[in-house]
This record gives sequence, structure tokens and C-alpha cells, in this order.
Amino acid sequence: MAEEVKLFGVWGSPFSRRVEIALKIKGVEYEYIEEDLANKSPLLLKYNPVHKKVPVLVHNGKPIAESVVIIEYIDETWKHNPILPQDPYERALTRFWAKFIDEKCLPALWNSTWSKGKDREAAIEEASQHLNTLENELKDKKFFGGEEIGLVDIVASFVGFWFGALQEVSGLELLTEEKVPKLCKWSYEVVNQSVIKENLPSRDKLIAYFSARFADASK
Amino acid sequence: MAEEVKLFGVWGSPFSRRVEIALKIKGVEYEYIEEDLANKSPLLLKYNPVHKKVPVLVHNGKPIAESVVIIEYIDETWKHNPILPQDPYERALTRFWAKFIDEKCLPALWNSTWSKGKDREAAIEEASQHLNTLENELKDKKFFGGEEIGLVDIVASFVGFWFGALQEVSGLELLTEEKVPKLCKWSYEVVNQSVIKENLPSRDKLIAYFSARFADASK
Repeated sequence: MAEEVKLFGVWGSPFSRRVEIALKIKGVEYEYIEEDLANKSPLLLKYNPVHKKVPVLVHNGKPIAESVVIIEYIDETWKHNPILPQDPYERALTRFWAKFIDEKCLPALWNSTWSKGKDREAAIEEASQHLNTLENELKDKKFFGGEEIGLVDIVASFVGFWFGALQEVSGLELLTEEKVPKLCKWSYEVVNQSVIKENLPSRDKLIAYFSARFADASK
Repeated sequence: MAEEVKLFGVWGSPFSRRVEIALKIKGVEYEYIEEDLANKSPLLLKYNPVHKKVPVLVHNGKPIAESVVIIEYIDETWKHNPILPQDPYERALTRFWAKFIDEKCLPALWNSTWSKGKDREAAIEEASQHLNTLENELKDKKFFGGEEIGLVDIVASFVGFWFGALQEVSGLELLTEEKVPKLCKWSYEVVNQSVIKENLPSRDKLIAYFSARFADASK
């Protein structure tokens, strides 16, 4: 049976981009459908009725939501070029760090830019702690996945790319060579891996989008 | 090599109990170490330096934190009596629902009991929606996992057991036969499965604990 793979995403979403990176690592061909979040398509609502969010992968008519769930599905369906390690203990550590980044780092990094007053101060403090935790976890590895990028690197691409743009727009200085040198080096390496580089949004477009939003939020 | 399996937990924690249920399903012998959260042991802090929380499973000296990560590790290490399905699509749906319960249902159900004022009203409304979502997902299945309990049933045991106790203490009426009949039936079935029943805390002890806390919170 010919494979039919569709991805519902949004150009600037780190969550849809993750799934694109995973599909490219596997060399899976797919049709990309750009969603308008202000006017969600009936198909998106049908395929993800619980969260009504991108990304949604539809494989031979069967929908899957939630980016990390989708990436694990991709890894289990197309087994070449593994994204998760094979060893159960290494898999558990990989899942632990992916969860830590999604549940702890991302909200803190996001709020360190967009929150106000004391909430923002608290988010900056928390984000700084979480970046130190990632710095310690990197140790002397090239990537979180070791010599090759893996699930944690894909999930953490938010830190290396999106947060870099947020920092530039907001004037924050959390991800700096002085504070987290290993994470900065990782950030440069990961963003320049061809499979990631070719699947990131335009930095200029993202900066323009965040700048407009930041100007609005500062009014 | 003889297996050495240790579990750091807390008697009333739905998250440690999940791991005990998974270990019992597999028939894995383990040493249980009760933690005092007001005075965490140096071992807990060493094994889970990021979150400093239970449960932590230590298998032959190697620690793993986060209950769902631990259960997937257990399922991949001891392969008999599977807890997750084998088919990649079914596995993805299982992970989707476990994540939905942990990230959406649990906070809403917890806050519907403990929050105050408008926050509580919002949590009750949200909890009610999430219970309806679970009711629709159950369809005519005996368990979320089908004929046998699986990861989603283990994760959802909070809904069937802990939230039942919270309801009794707080006077809420969200999980009722009138509102969510299938979920109520599931709740009864799941709590009476021997592997779950034998690994739940004493309901009386839990009710006493929540009652004291509820009385304090109402002062």
C-alpha cells in the first residue's frame, strides 16, 4: 500500500517543526498543510478534537496529535535512522529530558519574555536554573543524543533557535557564552545540522513576528 | 546477575502507586522505601536531583524518575504481560491519553477540590469537560486498554480512586452515574482489579488525610 502521510502545522511552531525534522531524518515523504490558528480548518478539528492544536500527523487516514507522541510513532513505524536510543535505560533518560524541556524549560523561557512584573522576574530566575540544568546534562557530549542528534536535541531546538530569537527581541541575556557555554556551543551545532537547519522557519520572519508581538505587549 | 529493584515512594501518592502496579503486573520483586516529603532522604535527592520527587525507580543502581517514564521502562525491560500495546498506532493513542490525563485531567480535578473562589469554579467546569472527554473515549470498552488494563487505566486510577475520595471529602459531584455512567462503571471495575486493588492505599487513611487537609484549607 502506498503510504499517505499528511502533516497539519504552522510555519512558526516549534512543535510542528519537530515533526518535520523527524520525518526528514527518516526520509518519509509527506504533504504539509499550513493551518491558520485564527480560523482552524474542519479537518484539524476533526483530527484533534481534544486539543484542537497543531501538529497533527495523519498516516494512512489515522490521526496522531502531540509532537513527542508523533515523533515516537514515527520512530516506531520507520525504524531506520533511529531517533530514540535502543537500550531501555537510555530510552527512559531520553524521555525524561524531553519531558523536562517541554514541561519546565519551555514555559519558563516563554514566560521570561512575555510575562509582566514579578511573574516575569520569577520566570527569568526559573529559566536560568533550567538552562543550567541542561548545561550540566550536556557534559562533554556534542549533542544530548551523543554524537548524533536525537529526540532531546529535536525537542530542545526551541531553546537553541526560538529562544535565541526571543532573547534578541526582548533584550534578555540568559543563553550566553558566559552563563551556559556548553549549551551555547550545542545551540550553534544543532541549528547548523543540515536536517534541522533546512526545517527551521526563517529567522528574519520569526524575529519580525516576535518583534511585532513584543511591541504590542509593551504598549 | 541478580536484579536489584528499589522504589522510592510515598504511601498516598498516585504516582508511586502507578509504578507499584506496573511492577506487580510484571511480577518483579522490589524493595519499597517510604519517603518523608517533609524531610527528603539524601538518596532521593541524589537519584532525582532535577525534580526531587517520588517516585524514583532504581534498577541495578541506575535511577529513573517520572512515573510514566518509569512504567515505559518497566514495560521495555520485562516484556511479558505487556502494559502498552505492541502496534505503533495503538501505542501512540495510549501515550496521547496518558499525557491528556496527567496534563489536563489531574490538575483540573485536583484544583476543583483545593482552589478557591473563581479559580475553583473554573477548575470544576474544566474537570467536568475532561471527564466527559474520557467518557467518550471509553466508548463500550471495559478498560481504556480494551479487555485488559493498560497504561491509560493505570494512569487514570487517580480519577477512579483518589478523585473518588476527594469528591467524598469536598462534596463535589462530578464523577457520578448520572453524569458519566461509563466512567463510573470503569472506575468500579478498575479499582476492583486485583493487581490494582492490592496496590492502592487504604481508602479510610486517604479520606482521613484529605479530610484533615480540607478542614485546614476551609479555615
